[in-house]
Amino acid sequence: MNRFEVVAAMLPSADVCAQAARATEEHFAPSNIAVCKYWGKRDAELNLPINPSLSVSLDHLGTRTRVEPIDGPVDDIWLNGLQMRPDTMFAQRLSRYIDLYRQGHPQAFRVETRNNIPTAAGLASSASGFAALTLALNDALQLELEAAALSMLARLGSGSACRSIYSGFVEWHMGHREDGADSHAHPIEAQWPGLAIGLIKVDEGVKSVDSRSGMARTVESCHLYQSWPLQANTDLVKLHQAIDAQDFKLLGSTAEQNALSMHATMIASWPPLVYWQPDSLAAMQKIWALRQQGLELYFTMDAGPNLKLLFLEQDREAVLSHFPDLEIVLPFGS
Amino acid sequence: MNRFEVVAAMLPSADVCAQAARATEEHFAPSNIAVCKYWGKRDAELNLPINPSLSVSLDHLGTRTRVEPIDGPVDDIWLNGLQMRPDTMFAQRLSRYIDLYRQGHPQAFRVETRNNIPTAAGLASSASGFAALTLALNDALQLELEAAALSMLARLGSGSACRSIYSGFVEWHMGHREDGADSHAHPIEAQWPGLAIGLIKVDEGVKSVDSRSGMARTVESCHLYQSWPLQANTDLVKLHQAIDAQDFKLLGSTAEQNALSMHATMIASWPPLVYWQPDSLAAMQKIWALRQQGLELYFTMDAGPNLKLLFLEQDREAVLSHFPDLEIVLPFGS
Repeated sequence: MNRFEVVAAMLPSADVCAQAARATEEHFAPSNIAVCKYWGKRDAELNLPINPSLSVSLDHLGTRTRVEPIDGPVDDIWLNGLQMRPDTMFAQRLSRYIDLYRQGHPQAFRVETRNNIPTAAGLASSASGFAALTLALNDALQLELEAAALSMLARLGSGSACRSIYSGFVEWHMGHREDGADSHAHPIEAQWPGLAIGLIKVDEGVKSVDSRSGMARTVESCHLYQSWPLQANTDLVKLHQAIDAQDFKLLGSTAEQNALSMHATMIASWPPLVYWQPDSLAAMQKIWALRQQGLELYFTMDAGPNLKLLFLEQDREAVLSHFPDLEIVLPFGS
Repeated sequence: MNRFEVVAAMLPSADVCAQAARATEEHFAPSNIAVCKYWGKRDAELNLPINPSLSVSLDHLGTRTRVEPIDGPVDDIWLNGLQMRPDTMFAQRLSRYIDLYRQGHPQAFRVETRNNIPTAAGLASSASGFAALTLALNDALQLELEAAALSMLARLGSGSACRSIYSGFVEWHMGHREDGADSHAHPIEAQWPGLAIGLIKVDEGVKSVDSRSGMARTVESCHLYQSWPLQANTDLVKLHQAIDAQDFKLLGSTAEQNALSMHATMIASWPPLVYWQPDSLAAMQKIWALRQQGLELYFTMDAGPNLKLLFLEQDREAVLSHFPDLEIVLPFGS
């Protein structure tokens, strides 16, 4: 089944763009930080994953997007106040996603999207971006879809976008169906006031190998990847235990080992896929040294050089004294 | 079966130390660089590996050792001209190994051992050290054992020492017997004149976690390790092809992916086992950039921060221009 057929089955009619398109207000979707990572697709067309994953949404950090039907042959796409040429990768990726809703009808849209996180630096702006665009299109086309359906649609734009439909802890059930109808995220009914995430910016540049290509390379060339689903499934059980018991040590250690294991599958790929910079490694060594001294500080990392620290708000001053430039988010408040 | 029983079966008599001990000349064993790594034991008492491995011996770099029976209650152990106190880890490890030959008889030895490689910095001085000591004890006790038996005995001192009994390319067959009688190295009948190994010294300090503990941690805590034997066995086939065809690209790429996969299993262990320093990563990035520019340059790494470069002698000047401090070894000459 291809993407167009999957989306067609979710729309009220094939010509919804002709019948219902209207301008929208801004819709917000948060960025999310996975504590059990998504790495590897079993279906690249539908973004169906090889393993389940679990994330925390980043409260106010994410993407705001509004859409508006326009006359003309091509979409008019704006990112952070700058008009993007239609031949940029960014504009093409958004237009191809909107094509799923157009189903062949020649309706163009103006898309205005704003991130308050660095684009493409491993801070998952594509996740919040496609989630916010999905929410805006749901409004623009008056689809009135439920969250699970929106999560499925967002997944077609970028896998981890399915988790950015929700706030708080979110689990992406990998599903088993070929059409992906059972592969979408669910919110986890748990709060964790005082849980803190700190963003270290090692490098804000665009990464050399995008996640899509990186995953494909890992699945094709890395022997160790065969054991990655075992790691992810084991970690998922531990993370649920940690969240239920508010056991921060279990949460942090599981998230860190999960991230390092994902990077291990990249490192063991060919050609080697090493997103770490020397400064990333120096930051890790600093964290391990601080932990040895008793500070409950862990990290996670996505497909990029940046670290995301995990700690409790009670240790905020201690953490800031060692990482003064840290941007801190409390996903559940104080 | 324990180590004492295994060795007893290989000695002409239990009191060989009483009957035949004599002073020896120096015996040399080379260090070896594995292109398919040994990582993980199925039997920690007998140093029986979970996977086969393949190495190149480093010609003139290694260990020279002589032994001499002495009167007195304890061994008198000298390393690089310095007398080692009997309570040092180094002296204790050697004495415990000699105990296997003493079989309870109270004969002490003077051991004089000299390395021309940095000790315990990932340049496998324990491999050449136990191999040289095994050769010296074979002479001192007039055992007249064959190479395969010496390889097996050296393995009891340090796993990879079984490969340092030979020069050139060496394969360690993991074996399947419980007593380890089929787990020893064999020389590969192949020469490769012009094959060059370059040693980069990132850090000559003693490493924070020794290989024995590191392996145990990986086997116990790393899920990805379950796929490591698959990696090693696949690489072994490729390495034999590369050696047979003198296909340097295949040799280099296989060795590099194998080393990175071994480090990946360490990185995915808990607590994380990261032997890399920021300078190690910077050296890797430099190598990948040079390879992109067309230089056939690969690396391997053991359980430490140092890189070992693999290249052909024809590229010596090009490699030296980027790594001026390189120590170059030609295991098979020009």
